[in-house]
Amino acid sequence: MSATPGPSYPQTGRTTPTRHRERAAYDRATVHAILDADWICHLGFVADGAPVVLPTIYARVGDRLYLHGSTGSRPLRAAGQGAGTAGRPEGSGADDGAGDAPDAAPEDGLRVCVTVTVADGVVLARSAFHHSVNYRSVVAHGTAHRVTDPAERARALDAIVDAAVPGRSADCRPATPKELAQTAVLRLDLAEVSAKVRQGGVADDPGDLSLPHWAGVLPLTRSFGPPQPDPALAPGTPLPPYLPAP
Amino acid sequence: MSATPGPSYPQTGRTTPTRHRERAAYDRATVHAILDADWICHLGFVADGAPVVLPTIYARVGDRLYLHGSTGSRPLRAAGQGAGTAGRPEGSGADDGAGDAPDAAPEDGLRVCVTVTVADGVVLARSAFHHSVNYRSVVAHGTAHRVTDPAERARALDAIVDAAVPGRSADCRPATPKELAQTAVLRLDLAEVSAKVRQGGVADDPGDLSLPHWAGVLPLTRSFGPPQPDPALAPGTPLPPYLPAP
Repeated sequence: MSATPGPSYPQTGRTTPTRHRERAAYDRATVHAILDADWICHLGFVADGAPVVLPTIYARVGDRLYLHGSTGSRPLRAAGQGAGTAGRPEGSGADDGAGDAPDAAPEDGLRVCVTVTVADGVVLARSAFHHSVNYRSVVAHGTAHRVTDPAERARALDAIVDAAVPGRSADCRPATPKELAQTAVLRLDLAEVSAKVRQGGVADDPGDLSLPHWAGVLPLTRSFGPPQPDPALAPGTPLPPYLPAP
Repeated sequence: MSATPGPSYPQTGRTTPTRHRERAAYDRATVHAILDADWICHLGFVADGAPVVLPTIYARVGDRLYLHGSTGSRPLRAAGQGAGTAGRPEGSGADDGAGDAPDAAPEDGLRVCVTVTVADGVVLARSAFHHSVNYRSVVAHGTAHRVTDPAERARALDAIVDAAVPGRSADCRPATPKELAQTAVLRLDLAEVSAKVRQGGVADDPGDLSLPHWAGVLPLTRSFGPPQPDPALAPGTPLPPYLPAP
């Protein structure tokens, strides 16, 4: 399956929920908006027959996800070596390896599931049973490949930095070729992907509405606090406009 | 391997990082503190040989994780049927199923990886290469089993509600036996588990310190906003003390 231009991703058995199908969405606008709302994902792969889930950071660029190689040298090596990484010492490109060896041959890429979850609130119903969570999530299945082209890797890393802090990639020293060679990036083409969204209020049973318990939604937000300057920052260095005021 | 009392979880090959080993921790205090700091996890399992990662909510109780059955009826059915669920219609207990059938026999439980990630900040270095993320994460490997005892399931669901909103489980209508029977819970004993923590400031190369780019840490926090009352709430219903003031 390849990602073809169009309004929606094709629905497959794997991306069809068995429950709450009304919460599922496949249109690019919904999927992309959720992916663009976050920059931390959970990367799943299979190692020695068992599942492994590791957090890493990512950015969406068109119909591709780029994942930073902070999830261990072994999964990244398994996802493919190329000219850009030839001769690298073992594990030199990964930031955060766990001791897992995925079940994949390097030339085949790495079978992955990438999941992004944005929590928007806790729904407090009068009944324990109807408590719920407002959330937006995307689950993407596919085969990830290591990005071997240095220019594509540089663009991907810029996109990842800007996904967390828009505007930052243009305001730092770019990576040197040597640094770039030490930074692994995984690419996953968005093809078999779905969104799931729960929004809204309390859905209590009618018979519970007169109970004395408070009911409603607790909104949940993630935000940046005041920037904490590096102690070595030269006095007078201005706070850039893309950062929140202290 | 079983969870035995003691200060630390045993380190295994799977929980030994290949990179940044100084960030890994195995002591219960660190692992439990991270698990107790969140209530959303990512549950990984293998379905048809491929990884699947789904978000769900959880609570830690001692050396056990309880996961809410909001991740699909099929993984939960695969994790075991018991007396408490006999005769249930297919999928009736799951809130949020994806179309995946895990590779596990019901009687064997479900091989899982449960990962919790708390993001604490973005580290903005002068060089693109040294940008980083402050985070605390826990990765737990093991075999999850469906909780079949109704009393244990009720306690687990209370713990999950209280993990998100401490004090709430005592201030709502408890689940009826019928509702309990429709709510699936997975249990994972903490045995093969590790934490990984990155905290602190910028680690730029000495030669970059004089560059004009702002450097420092952007702290990241998740917080509840003002409670939004259900429109059907009886006038005068007080806001309980465990919720943030509007």
